Amino acid sequence: MANKEEKLGIKVKKSDDFSEWYNEVVIKSELAEHSPIKGFMVIKPRGYAVWEKIQHFFDANIKKLGVKNAYFPLLIPEKFFKKEAEHAEGFAPELAWVSDKEEGEKYAIRPTSETIMYDSYSRWIRSWRDLPLRLNQWCNVLRWEVKQTKLFLRTREFLWQEGHCVYETEEECEKETKMYLNEYKKICEELLAIPVIEGEKTEKERFAGAKRTYTLEALMPDGKALQMGTSHNLGQNFAKAFNIKFLGRDEKIKVPWQNSWGLSTRTIGAMVMTHSDDKGLVLPPKAAPTQIVIVPIFKSEDKDKIVTKAEEIRSRLKDYEVELDDRDGYSPGWKFNEWELKGIPLRIEIGPKDIEKKQVVLVRRDTNEKEAVPISQLDKKVDETLDYVQNHLFENAKKFLKSNLVFAEGWKDFVKHLKDRKLVEASFCGRIECENEIKEKTNGATSRLIPFGQPKKLGKCIHCDKEAKFMVIFGKAY
Amino acid sequence: MANKEEKLGIKVKKSDDFSEWYNEVVIKSELAEHSPIKGFMVIKPRGYAVWEKIQHFFDANIKKLGVKNAYFPLLIPEKFFKKEAEHAEGFAPELAWVSDKEEGEKYAIRPTSETIMYDSYSRWIRSWRDLPLRLNQWCNVLRWEVKQTKLFLRTREFLWQEGHCVYETEEECEKETKMYLNEYKKICEELLAIPVIEGEKTEKERFAGAKRTYTLEALMPDGKALQMGTSHNLGQNFAKAFNIKFLGRDEKIKVPWQNSWGLSTRTIGAMVMTHSDDKGLVLPPKAAPTQIVIVPIFKSEDKDKIVTKAEEIRSRLKDYEVELDDRDGYSPGWKFNEWELKGIPLRIEIGPKDIEKKQVVLVRRDTNEKEAVPISQLDKKVDETLDYVQNHLFENAKKFLKSNLVFAEGWKDFVKHLKDRKLVEASFCGRIECENEIKEKTNGATSRLIPFGQPKKLGKCIHCDKEAKFMVIFGKAY
Repeated sequence: MANKEEKLGIKVKKSDDFSEWYNEVVIKSELAEHSPIKGFMVIKPRGYAVWEKIQHFFDANIKKLGVKNAYFPLLIPEKFFKKEAEHAEGFAPELAWVSDKEEGEKYAIRPTSETIMYDSYSRWIRSWRDLPLRLNQWCNVLRWEVKQTKLFLRTREFLWQEGHCVYETEEECEKETKMYLNEYKKICEELLAIPVIEGEKTEKERFAGAKRTYTLEALMPDGKALQMGTSHNLGQNFAKAFNIKFLGRDEKIKVPWQNSWGLSTRTIGAMVMTHSDDKGLVLPPKAAPTQIVIVPIFKSEDKDKIVTKAEEIRSRLKDYEVELDDRDGYSPGWKFNEWELKGIPLRIEIGPKDIEKKQVVLVRRDTNEKEAVPISQLDKKVDETLDYVQNHLFENAKKFLKSNLVFAEGWKDFVKHLKDRKLVEASFCGRIECENEIKEKTNGATSRLIPFGQPKKLGKCIHCDKEAKFMVIFGKAY
Repeated sequence: MANKEEKLGIKVKKSDDFSEWYNEVVIKSELAEHSPIKGFMVIKPRGYAVWEKIQHFFDANIKKLGVKNAYFPLLIPEKFFKKEAEHAEGFAPELAWVSDKEEGEKYAIRPTSETIMYDSYSRWIRSWRDLPLRLNQWCNVLRWEVKQTKLFLRTREFLWQEGHCVYETEEECEKETKMYLNEYKKICEELLAIPVIEGEKTEKERFAGAKRTYTLEALMPDGKALQMGTSHNLGQNFAKAFNIKFLGRDEKIKVPWQNSWGLSTRTIGAMVMTHSDDKGLVLPPKAAPTQIVIVPIFKSEDKDKIVTKAEEIRSRLKDYEVELDDRDGYSPGWKFNEWELKGIPLRIEIGPKDIEKKQVVLVRRDTNEKEAVPISQLDKKVDETLDYVQNHLFENAKKFLKSNLVFAEGWKDFVKHLKDRKLVEASFCGRIECENEIKEKTNGATSRLIPFGQPKKLGKCIHCDKEAKFMVIFGKAY
């Protein structure tokens, strides 16, 4: 048994080698693994089930907001990419190409679908009556990354949703661009229990072709920032490039306003990093495909009786996905380790003494706290405990974010905070050249976002001493 | 108005030019359209919503059977394809290739995922405890077809699900291969209201690499057969090619048994063909994203009163998706035409006289039957009527299938029935050469399936007069 336990568990501590620890947790908890194709991953059932949780949550919410799902081609003709210059330039290095020799055409596998969708939009939209047009697609995209692969966070193919809306007015477009960002915030905070900072990207970090990019940034335990979702106000850039026009209420031909917004499987990686520990995966109950595991503690002579009771308990917990582990040949301790590794939020133990006392023992995955609970109170206690776990994970992550978000008074302070792996608030001039110099001098720190809720006074830029345009949060990023 | 109505409606009759009629119905009812990329389609929201109905129905059913969803890479290394010889040969003409110059590798965009999945399976499966392994993925696939594109039925990219299971024993594998076929039958008959014939493919028509292919065939109104879904018993072919082995209960190393099964967006095309008419799309209520449209009939002076009543009715019909069309500037007649074109199964009309009489008028899309219904009985009547529509469409299609499935006594009879666009039952020797000759002599008829439930006596082959092996259904196919 000892041998098995050793093989099963996480060998590297989160505090010793965060990157290797993360890789081990993802693989050993069976969320995903590296594919034999360089840069690609296989999303295993336990990982895909988390993605389904995100899909169901978000899909229901955006449908209420009038968004409809559709599906556009995987391949995008080269000529479409060339239409919006900045967009073309931004994505050029990451494209994978397919040639159709018969047609003499070259197609890119979609890295994002603005161009192919807006080509259709230019034929679909005729009048203000066709607006707003709000479409979304759930699909795979390909970006031929050259940096080292990291499961969920950096792979050449990933799964995501991309929303693409068209509006009559600039105001409506801007309002909804922020509204979708807020929907992403709900996924992060309510489902994945990850606190996020909301704001806008600087010119340098903006989406290729966008007027403004709004973003949610989360802070990982290793001090790196991770972009959780972005919503782009595209202005009229793409509408002009793709010749999208509409007849206005005043009978005049107008150019509409557009946004696009995406959230991907990388959020699963953020969830793993944020909550998990040296024993393995920790899942917030709302994002967990299985919330509860029941481990009956039996010897062969009393197995029937105890497993019958365990089954009775399972059938009572109808609101949850429950696993009952009644396997022979594994000790209870081995089972505890396995389900802890796999991140099941709540364990219910039931042995002969518990049956005598008409109780079970609840064990929380996040704190390891144990509590004997009378079976008569089980349903209420399970509801409560799962709520506690969800809230506790979120509160812990909030505390971490708060204590690692610091303000830099001057350049020295700024550099020191970055070295200490903090997210650093600083006044900034907003110029691309200045941002490039900051990145160079700090070994890779980038502006993460211009947070909503700016201070009244700004003073001088932290780096170049020119007049500051806004307060920006800098950090190292994934 | 007359002009608008003309533009909106279907111009070609189903009985005059079936193919053009189909294309018009799909496009004008806004299910899908041709993409500017040759061979590709855009699935529009109304079409995608039908796919979501199929997904929800099937996904829930297979999860109950122990199937889990996962996701494998879009790209498949050339060397994987080469491992199973028949499979490689079968798919070779249809592959689209991406080159990674740095790695010196060539990848095909997946036409199906046996090879990439079974490469993983060979590492995942160690012992009989890992079996059965039952995985499914919802994804896009690419097959570079050269035949003319037909929306939903023949496009280079389509959406589907592919299930891939591994078993300890041949018996279990065979049993479940048929079980998944039966799940497909439920989609066809219970959801899409399309009757199907179940059976096995002949050697010639079998999936490349399979031991046996089970199929569901439906008959379209133009007399062509359409394959609705297939489930392949792969035997040990792929397991041997991909070196999948497991330690048996007897501690001996064994080769497992596998199946794979797929159903695609082409079933949406079959649904359109089967039920729709010269006024446009007809959707079975269970496959319809919107089951009911309420059209209030008002003049500007009584609009408020009537729309208020219509909203009250909508809020009562909680179990359904209901659209309320209170647009100004369109006559009721124009609205009726539009919603008929788009296939909404049930229309509720409410005008000033109806309000006086405390009634509404229900109009069935399939038969155009009208019925005045007291508002007090609305819920019950709506339930009933939608059930009638669903059953009526299915019964109609069953009658059509029954009257067009004929038995051929001899060769002359066989040829005549095929000319008359029937599905023809005939005794058959099973030889590939014989089947090739039949195809040639009949201008393209192929064996559709060897139906389950074979006659006791077979006699001689319809074509070559050799001893018959089974009774086969022949027909022209999509």
